[in-house]
Amino acid sequence: MKWWGWGDASRSVELPAHALDLLRTELGVSGERRPPAGFEQLEVPEPVLAGKAAQRLADLLGPECLRDDRLTRVTHAAGKGYPDLVRLRGGNVASAPDAVVYPGDARDVRGVLDICGSERVAVVPFGGGTSVVGGVEPVSDGKSGLISLDLGRMAALEAVDERSLTASLGPGMRCPQVEEALGARGFTLGHFPQSFEYATVGGCVATRSAGQASTGYGSIEKLVRGLRCVTPAGEIDLPAIPATAAGPGLRQLLVGSEGVLGVITQATLSIRPVPRERRYEGWMFRTFDDGVEAFRQLEQRGVVPDVARVSDEDETRLSFTLAGGSSVARRAGMRYVRLRGYSGGSLVVIGFEGERAEVARRAALATRLLRRSGGLSLGSAPGRAWRRTRYEGPYLRDALLDRGVMVETLETAHEWSRLLELYGAVRGAIHGALEARGTPGLVMCHVSHLYPSGASLYFTFLARQEEGAEIEQWRAVKSAASDAIAGAGGTITHHHAVGRDHAAWMPTEVGELGVAVLDAVKRRLDPVGIMNPGKLLPLTGDGR
Amino acid sequence: MKWWGWGDASRSVELPAHALDLLRTELGVSGERRPPAGFEQLEVPEPVLAGKAAQRLADLLGPECLRDDRLTRVTHAAGKGYPDLVRLRGGNVASAPDAVVYPGDARDVRGVLDICGSERVAVVPFGGGTSVVGGVEPVSDGKSGLISLDLGRMAALEAVDERSLTASLGPGMRCPQVEEALGARGFTLGHFPQSFEYATVGGCVATRSAGQASTGYGSIEKLVRGLRCVTPAGEIDLPAIPATAAGPGLRQLLVGSEGVLGVITQATLSIRPVPRERRYEGWMFRTFDDGVEAFRQLEQRGVVPDVARVSDEDETRLSFTLAGGSSVARRAGMRYVRLRGYSGGSLVVIGFEGERAEVARRAALATRLLRRSGGLSLGSAPGRAWRRTRYEGPYLRDALLDRGVMVETLETAHEWSRLLELYGAVRGAIHGALEARGTPGLVMCHVSHLYPSGASLYFTFLARQEEGAEIEQWRAVKSAASDAIAGAGGTITHHHAVGRDHAAWMPTEVGELGVAVLDAVKRRLDPVGIMNPGKLLPLTGDGR
Repeated sequence: MKWWGWGDASRSVELPAHALDLLRTELGVSGERRPPAGFEQLEVPEPVLAGKAAQRLADLLGPECLRDDRLTRVTHAAGKGYPDLVRLRGGNVASAPDAVVYPGDARDVRGVLDICGSERVAVVPFGGGTSVVGGVEPVSDGKSGLISLDLGRMAALEAVDERSLTASLGPGMRCPQVEEALGARGFTLGHFPQSFEYATVGGCVATRSAGQASTGYGSIEKLVRGLRCVTPAGEIDLPAIPATAAGPGLRQLLVGSEGVLGVITQATLSIRPVPRERRYEGWMFRTFDDGVEAFRQLEQRGVVPDVARVSDEDETRLSFTLAGGSSVARRAGMRYVRLRGYSGGSLVVIGFEGERAEVARRAALATRLLRRSGGLSLGSAPGRAWRRTRYEGPYLRDALLDRGVMVETLETAHEWSRLLELYGAVRGAIHGALEARGTPGLVMCHVSHLYPSGASLYFTFLARQEEGAEIEQWRAVKSAASDAIAGAGGTITHHHAVGRDHAAWMPTEVGELGVAVLDAVKRRLDPVGIMNPGKLLPLTGDGR
Repeated sequence: MKWWGWGDASRSVELPAHALDLLRTELGVSGERRPPAGFEQLEVPEPVLAGKAAQRLADLLGPECLRDDRLTRVTHAAGKGYPDLVRLRGGNVASAPDAVVYPGDARDVRGVLDICGSERVAVVPFGGGTSVVGGVEPVSDGKSGLISLDLGRMAALEAVDERSLTASLGPGMRCPQVEEALGARGFTLGHFPQSFEYATVGGCVATRSAGQASTGYGSIEKLVRGLRCVTPAGEIDLPAIPATAAGPGLRQLLVGSEGVLGVITQATLSIRPVPRERRYEGWMFRTFDDGVEAFRQLEQRGVVPDVARVSDEDETRLSFTLAGGSSVARRAGMRYVRLRGYSGGSLVVIGFEGERAEVARRAALATRLLRRSGGLSLGSAPGRAWRRTRYEGPYLRDALLDRGVMVETLETAHEWSRLLELYGAVRGAIHGALEARGTPGLVMCHVSHLYPSGASLYFTFLARQEEGAEIEQWRAVKSAASDAIAGAGGTITHHHAVGRDHAAWMPTEVGELGVAVLDAVKRRLDPVGIMNPGKLLPLTGDGR
């Protein structure tokens, strides 16, 4: 992955001319290129890892598994959130870890944590490095040094239990590796976050991840059967069982622990047979509200699609405008929508996966219900287009940053009864904050994960970057949106996790006492406070 | 509820003559009556609650909500497990609480915990008092006194959100109250544990309960959206949200907390429309293994019944033999089964609930699959019979105890790939332990909760009581069964919770470090150690 953005540098995306026009017109961006700093220009700080720690780590792992070369340190200096990319593109790599270690197994991890505990070295567990909330940001919090613990070597499919439909996976396995290894045996995990290409099993578990098909397959918390986690205080091994009433849910205490308690060294997850059929469809609704209401009914009546996504009017307009592909087909589609009286409406993508007959049955039920709710079928083309471009968001982001456009996403969830109120509050807060900075923006949203009691909202917003004050601009908007979410009673994050960016809202989310409970758990498992400081819990200044 | 057994004394059950014959023949019980001690004979210890604590509690709640009369104390002296009933029937109420308080709301609860914290009085939260694992046993653990905190007054349906399909319920609501209040508005919780008539919302949440229809509706952990819990350190309020990635799962840390962290004062749970159709059917399989395998396929292919139950050969035989109803019909049924070559086989009950068309569709798919797996349809009579008698187990237990029969149940769960191995190990351990005591017994089992990755096993066993050594006898068998469960990798409890009886196996279940994590949480929320001592976590002797 390129150090300053997303994906392989060879697979870069260019903004089409009409998109650039739109950004000029609607956001007032100049469109001039603002390329990232050159690698050779980066001022990477000298590593400060105390000699004894470095030596002990090298003795444990072998010198080839303790790296402190420039490129390795820079590629572990940040996640892939907007402020990360702004800093990296600007050449700011001040937070690069002093070294990166590559343990080969849980025993290595245990050894690394032992050494770092006694030498007071902070440890940032690192999977795919795709966090968009500062989850892998190196924060040493007064420790004598900081290492990144890269799980890339622990990437084996360790076992498949075909009778129980579970697989035990190494934490460093990337999602494509998981699908490839399982697919060869006829199974799928069904977990497809937008960061799919780079996200790892351990990262998904540690951040309580949800994927694009999680409405059907279930988010990672639903898939976890067993977990192993190495903490500074020892190992917790929770074997795979289908269910238990043996006290509080420790598995769910480790899911979402974001590396602050320990390192997940193995996850046993539920798997399914590879679907024989995949059917994706596009629909239009006259309004976002209509589409959301149709989704509520779909979900609550049990006609649950595997993928479900309804874009608000602005996101629909923007995706029609920016869509790639033949502009003839695009215009024909837009004309059809207009003629039927749905222009300015809301685009829906739904997908069904599974056995042929079952997919056909569910799709037929959905068709009836969506039609009755005022939906207009657009056939399979929009579904196919969505599937083709489902992982393109982060590539497009690089192209937008190249042109001086701020682009950020944030998400929440709430009960159906309060979802549109939350939508209005957050949308208004983002617009307001952008306008207050003098950079009025485009704010888009979609609902993309359905539950019987509610759904998630996923916002994307674009604005002209405030040159030289990009981070302040971002922080103002992020903060306004987060306050609006908290004020309307939504969760501060549905699937991006807490990291650094949401830590300040945790007391609102779970109460001061809830935070205190998490802190008590951390103190028990990580008494020296070496594990991923500053994430999830507020920095306390005492090295925790 | 009668103080020495289950249910209203007026609704007592008599063993039919053929059942008594069978117990005489197979277990060697004399069948002579062993009635419980008379209430007036009970030696209830003097209440030792320090005068100041009693006064402060009375000032807080009013004298009518602080009771220490004999009947109130005796009815809060134990749960409804086999050893509880043995002790109670023998007149042993040495552990009766010093007083019982009846808070009216969360503020009252907070006040009670404040007083008990400063006066060092142990508090046992008490819902329906139906624990079968010693979960409400008064253990003062060196405190200056012990009160039972009865949630019976906090029994309101506080809110229903019909759009989000959630209801906020007071912890003291009993399951029938819940169904009545929700039913009046067209909804159901769908939670039907065998203790349904007395079990409360708070108790179900605190014990991570599963009901007879939880294969379809989901066990309580799946239904919990929001929770409020008052702890000695303050209140935790986790509002209802459909899903979140905001860190470790605190909701799931409170579910199953068994009163050792605090008192659940409100639960917001997912609800569903009352099903229009209920369809229950009986099937026979030639062997238990065949039935279990058919269930695995049913569940993993997504044809999930709401109720699913397959009895092993011994349970099938016993339920045919002991079944009430017309013996002509019973014999006709047995003849049919024999003629078709299924005698000595395994009985299956499955139930489908929901919309008419959907029930018909699922039942038809199930029929096809069960037939293909070698099942023989018995029509709807066995299903109706099961539904009619579904809450009768505890009444029957009293009748068995009356005749000197030991009767106990225990349960576990495991992955499909190891379920039958676990079954054999536990069954063998129970038989072996009973034989070693010189009281060979009848051991029965059924699978009754299905998950994609596994299922639960529910054992019932009968033996002649060792007169005068009933508790030692029970402990020997319970211990052997629990060791066998742990040895085969099953969970120590699928839905009875931990209480006192399973606390010793928690280190095997979650590891020493897992127990230490729970202990750290407890120390944070209950620093003086007043909350339900001796449950879930081992007694430490330091008052925790």
